[in-house]
Amino acid sequence: MIRLNCDYCKGALPEVLEALQTINDQAFCGYGCDEVCERAARLIRERAGVPSADVHFLVGGTQANFIVIESALRPWQSVICADSGHINVHETGAVEHAGHKCETAPAHDGKISADQVRAIAANWAGSIIPEHITQPKMVYLSMATETGSVYTLAELAAIRAVCDEFSLYLFIDGARLSYGLEAIGGDVSLEDIAGLADVFYCGGTKCGALFGEAVVIVNDELKPHFRANMKQNGAMLAKGWLLGAQFEALFTDDLYFKVARRANEYAARVKDACAKAGIPLFAQTTTNQVFINFTDAQYAQISEQFELEFEERTDEEHVAIRVCTSWATREEEIVALEEAIAAL
Amino acid sequence: MIRLNCDYCKGALPEVLEALQTINDQAFCGYGCDEVCERAARLIRERAGVPSADVHFLVGGTQANFIVIESALRPWQSVICADSGHINVHETGAVEHAGHKCETAPAHDGKISADQVRAIAANWAGSIIPEHITQPKMVYLSMATETGSVYTLAELAAIRAVCDEFSLYLFIDGARLSYGLEAIGGDVSLEDIAGLADVFYCGGTKCGALFGEAVVIVNDELKPHFRANMKQNGAMLAKGWLLGAQFEALFTDDLYFKVARRANEYAARVKDACAKAGIPLFAQTTTNQVFINFTDAQYAQISEQFELEFEERTDEEHVAIRVCTSWATREEEIVALEEAIAAL
Amino acid sequence: MIRLNCDYCKGALPEVLEALQTINDQAFCGYGCDEVCERAARLIRERAGVPSADVHFLVGGTQANFIVIESALRPWQSVICADSGHINVHETGAVEHAGHKCETAPAHDGKISADQVRAIAANWAGSIIPEHITQPKMVYLSMATETGSVYTLAELAAIRAVCDEFSLYLFIDGARLSYGLEAIGGDVSLEDIAGLADVFYCGGTKCGALFGEAVVIVNDELKPHFRANMKQNGAMLAKGWLLGAQFEALFTDDLYFKVARRANEYAARVKDACAKAGIPLFAQTTTNQVFINFTDAQYAQISEQFELEFEERTDEEHVAIRVCTSWATREEEIVALEEAIAAL
Amino acid sequence: MIRLNCDYCKGALPEVLEALQTINDQAFCGYGCDEVCERAARLIRERAGVPSADVHFLVGGTQANFIVIESALRPWQSVICADSGHINVHETGAVEHAGHKCETAPAHDGKISADQVRAIAANWAGSIIPEHITQPKMVYLSMATETGSVYTLAELAAIRAVCDEFSLYLFIDGARLSYGLEAIGGDVSLEDIAGLADVFYCGGTKCGALFGEAVVIVNDELKPHFRANMKQNGAMLAKGWLLGAQFEALFTDDLYFKVARRANEYAARVKDACAKAGIPLFAQTTTNQVFINFTDAQYAQISEQFELEFEERTDEEHVAIRVCTSWATREEEIVALEEAIAAL
Repeated sequence: MIRLNCDYCKGALPEVLEALQTINDQAFCGYGCDEVCERAARLIRERAGVPSADVHFLVGGTQANFIVIESALRPWQSVICADSGHINVHETGAVEHAGHKCETAPAHDGKISADQVRAIAANWAGSIIPEHITQPKMVYLSMATETGSVYTLAELAAIRAVCDEFSLYLFIDGARLSYGLEAIGGDVSLEDIAGLADVFYCGGTKCGALFGEAVVIVNDELKPHFRANMKQNGAMLAKGWLLGAQFEALFTDDLYFKVARRANEYAARVKDACAKAGIPLFAQTTTNQVFINFTDAQYAQISEQFELEFEERTDEEHVAIRVCTSWATREEEIVALEEAIAAL
Repeated sequence: MIRLNCDYCKGALPEVLEALQTINDQAFCGYGCDEVCERAARLIRERAGVPSADVHFLVGGTQANFIVIESALRPWQSVICADSGHINVHETGAVEHAGHKCETAPAHDGKISADQVRAIAANWAGSIIPEHITQPKMVYLSMATETGSVYTLAELAAIRAVCDEFSLYLFIDGARLSYGLEAIGGDVSLEDIAGLADVFYCGGTKCGALFGEAVVIVNDELKPHFRANMKQNGAMLAKGWLLGAQFEALFTDDLYFKVARRANEYAARVKDACAKAGIPLFAQTTTNQVFINFTDAQYAQISEQFELEFEERTDEEHVAIRVCTSWATREEEIVALEEAIAAL
Repeated sequence: MIRLNCDYCKGALPEVLEALQTINDQAFCGYGCDEVCERAARLIRERAGVPSADVHFLVGGTQANFIVIESALRPWQSVICADSGHINVHETGAVEHAGHKCETAPAHDGKISADQVRAIAANWAGSIIPEHITQPKMVYLSMATETGSVYTLAELAAIRAVCDEFSLYLFIDGARLSYGLEAIGGDVSLEDIAGLADVFYCGGTKCGALFGEAVVIVNDELKPHFRANMKQNGAMLAKGWLLGAQFEALFTDDLYFKVARRANEYAARVKDACAKAGIPLFAQTTTNQVFINFTDAQYAQISEQFELEFEERTDEEHVAIRVCTSWATREEEIVALEEAIAAL
Repeated sequence: MIRLNCDYCKGALPEVLEALQTINDQAFCGYGCDEVCERAARLIRERAGVPSADVHFLVGGTQANFIVIESALRPWQSVICADSGHINVHETGAVEHAGHKCETAPAHDGKISADQVRAIAANWAGSIIPEHITQPKMVYLSMATETGSVYTLAELAAIRAVCDEFSLYLFIDGARLSYGLEAIGGDVSLEDIAGLADVFYCGGTKCGALFGEAVVIVNDELKPHFRANMKQNGAMLAKGWLLGAQFEALFTDDLYFKVARRANEYAARVKDACAKAGIPLFAQTTTNQVFINFTDAQYAQISEQFELEFEERTDEEHVAIRVCTSWATREEEIVALEEAIAAL
């Protein structure tokens, strides 16, 4: 059985695991105040072109999301996001638990637009009773999105302009950032992300690490006391160097990006295989997620050999199925899937 | 420079790291729903003698503490603890952030007594305006305590009796549980802990794992929806098997306890060395922490070779210093420290 | 200038004010533990036919809403409501501030349906990863709704059935309960509300009192410690009898209902006046709110004499305007408005 | 039976009630945006000598306390207070419910000192791991205190100096402000309070109003969005003018202060009566609260005619009893109490 159902079902890249092995017997300062974290942070700052950014290493995506949002917002402020945004649908209300409303707009292809953001921000800004409404103060978007799509540079710049107009923070969830930046045909670089966002993170968990997300705070307003917020929410790893070492490995020789590029190319091959076989896609994506509209029979047949992720029933005879490649996907797995699709 | 300042300054036991290496290329279900976690949970349940307990693997101690407390308490309820309790002094107010008051009692030797618990519980129970006061509903204590002491079985049983009298939950913070249970002269077993507590955890971070705490929920009332609480607080590791594998290694062949026993014996040797050298201790401990009352000159001299932890100035010429052994301490390090103390 | 813009722009019914005057020099127990509150509670229980219900007097609607919701839900649980629900749009995120997500469904005529509730509840109940989603545990609806409509008994019964099916609490916001129950053509009684809801409140602020909402808890599960929740949220009035006295006056001789009936009849006369004048309504209502689709010119003309509430621009030449009658509306005001509309 | 057990057991001063009566039929803007509130705010600003302060009218003291604290602090910040402070002991953990720790110091005569504040602030400021501790950011004190004592101007100035040294906000709970400022022998004026505090409130509930506290925000940093905080916590009274009218009455012709002075003088007479009768006091106070150390027999005898408040048993034969005068106390009640004490 070949698992291509998600991008967090295997351990880590060999380079990552080796980094942990190498330093296992060394003693370090606790809580992220060690030289390994400092080296990793420097690599990320340099690669992103933001030499004065703060970099913090957290364990997971939900944790990074709600802590960034909580640390940026005051109690009466809310965060604008797509209704399909991860924070709105798959984090057990972590943002609300932290006291903040998600002001949602209907996603198109997994994305929200500058116009949608403006409408929500303008509603508050133009209200005669603004204190009766939560104040939108942050925009949250994912790159790549939860459905495998990516924002273009123009789309992000337009959202940034609205953020400037209404004094909103822009927060980019980068749980799948490497896949997003290496999207086939994409035009957004890490430098672009760092130049446009007030805060973002480079996901590790889905991108080659055992675990870990590197939060990059670009806006000075958001820097103070972030570590206190982390600690208060149980998000300051005692042995912080475990995170630093993983990101040092990922950001050495662009490993982080190379493995994502490969995963995206594998995904493209799966799409090609579907096209050749006349099997329609459920969504158009350019990253590591492929959404295929199988017939029930096709799904049953392919499931004998592959574990894929069921998304939803699309009609009485069809189901939307996700194939998810990753840094861990091997070429023989893709070859096998290509052959299986051809044989449907 | 030999670091004996804390018990979380090195990676993990070789068996733990090897376990992660071994399964690195295997694909698993996410979020702790995998066979490795199930095996580890079974080992812990068996060792603790609570076959029907729920076991959840969290990443760190602060996280485990506030999530257990939040999941057990309703908004108007509080937790009783020693004023020196970790939740009260070193977690950036995580419990209050989760909405709950810590009702503190002055610690004696790092511990609270059944009588202190009763006094706080009775104050609420006997109040004519109980709704103006938070309702104490849980007792939090640490085994071993933050200052290296341990509760006796009689002390724990007395606290349990008060908990039964006032319908309080007993929560035992086991960040250093293995050291506590293997305390020199101690009389408490893991079965005792599991038999007395409503919920407790077996700490991994300080006891041989890279990271991780195994929360064991014994009381059925506290079991439902605990995973939702975890997820909501960003405490559900995507690759849960990383935690399961570490605890499986620790609870195989009693490794968890053996390395703690060794660390405690090393600590005892340090105490003996001090006694022989006529250097007084700052606190009497039977676990892996030794608190020494050095003169400034002694501390300066020992610091040339050892990194120890400064606790506080005890008078104009003396300082309280912590030596902390751990699963990672090697005999040659203890020999070196014995010699250095003898030479003071 | 005649104000008919809202139903909370004047003090209180003379009977209410007189009740406060009468007891002004008497000394009472604090915090609602007085005989006046007890008498008022008894009147409400009797009128609603729920002799064992708990009755608590709170100061305002937002306060009542979030405290009822917070006291009923656990951290991972959410409340289902119409997207136009007051808690979702006009309470500055009070529910999210209390840690809970509003799971919204698009309102039709200000209402949600049993089918919409079922869809949301079933989504969680049928999920294979329920712990990643907030658990819907309560349905919130308003009677009358924010847009002046009312639920029929059949609609409420259908929602109740879904609540039973999925173990949801039904919470009815009664900020305008008297208007809702006295709706022209309505078929719902206070006994029906009390028989269907787990918890609801009889609004005072908009229905004849100076301030105050009487929360009625029917379901035993929701009763314990409600006063502690109130106190913790600053919602326990020190001089509780001020609330009790007002509700005693309102529930004596059915005053609460009579004045609402009159207000609804006045509203009906305004609708009739529009119909005669050929001026369309923006929404169909049977309670004390009338939504009129004026031309800009009409609105300008009517505004010379009346203060009404602007709702929204409906097209380039029309605006939706709310006329709101209340317990304080006098017949001469309605006569004046009828004449003014006829003169448009 | 004469009730002298507390200062919130009767309605309001006649002037207050008359003010409400007078405007009962007038229509106003909602939510405190009316001319009555504006007039009352102006009176308070003028009397306090802070023409640019923001004034907000809230309903009660617990509500005022936690909302002021929540609006001023960020999640990782705490408030310093006496262990006997109202927020620490009688508000059901409202401050912790809002997410903040109370950093307590032992009260002396109900008060904390500048040195105690400095010690707590310095502990954080000098910590090498400040992110593991909550950051003290506000000092909370009550004037008069919960035990009837008052701060001197020198004491307040010393605390202010520490606040300046450590960038702490000073928040003065004025639930009994009028009694505190009119303390027999006191040297603190309303102008002093407004000059020293960043935010404080003039209590109405215990000082002649039916209900209501006037929060005065002096520090510009604390002004923005306070109304949003109020609304979010259900503390924005729909009919805000009810509060404005009461405070307008209280701050007309110094009524607020005159009635407090009279109450304090009545309390002094009670103390004198005890002195003459040789009955010791339990605490020395100069405001409207008198704490008497009765024998059980004395307490039984006095209780036949007076309802006083039991505080605690002081030894096997004595109890501490509170006599509380107020704006509502009549001279004949004091005469009766004087006679009763003399007859013990």
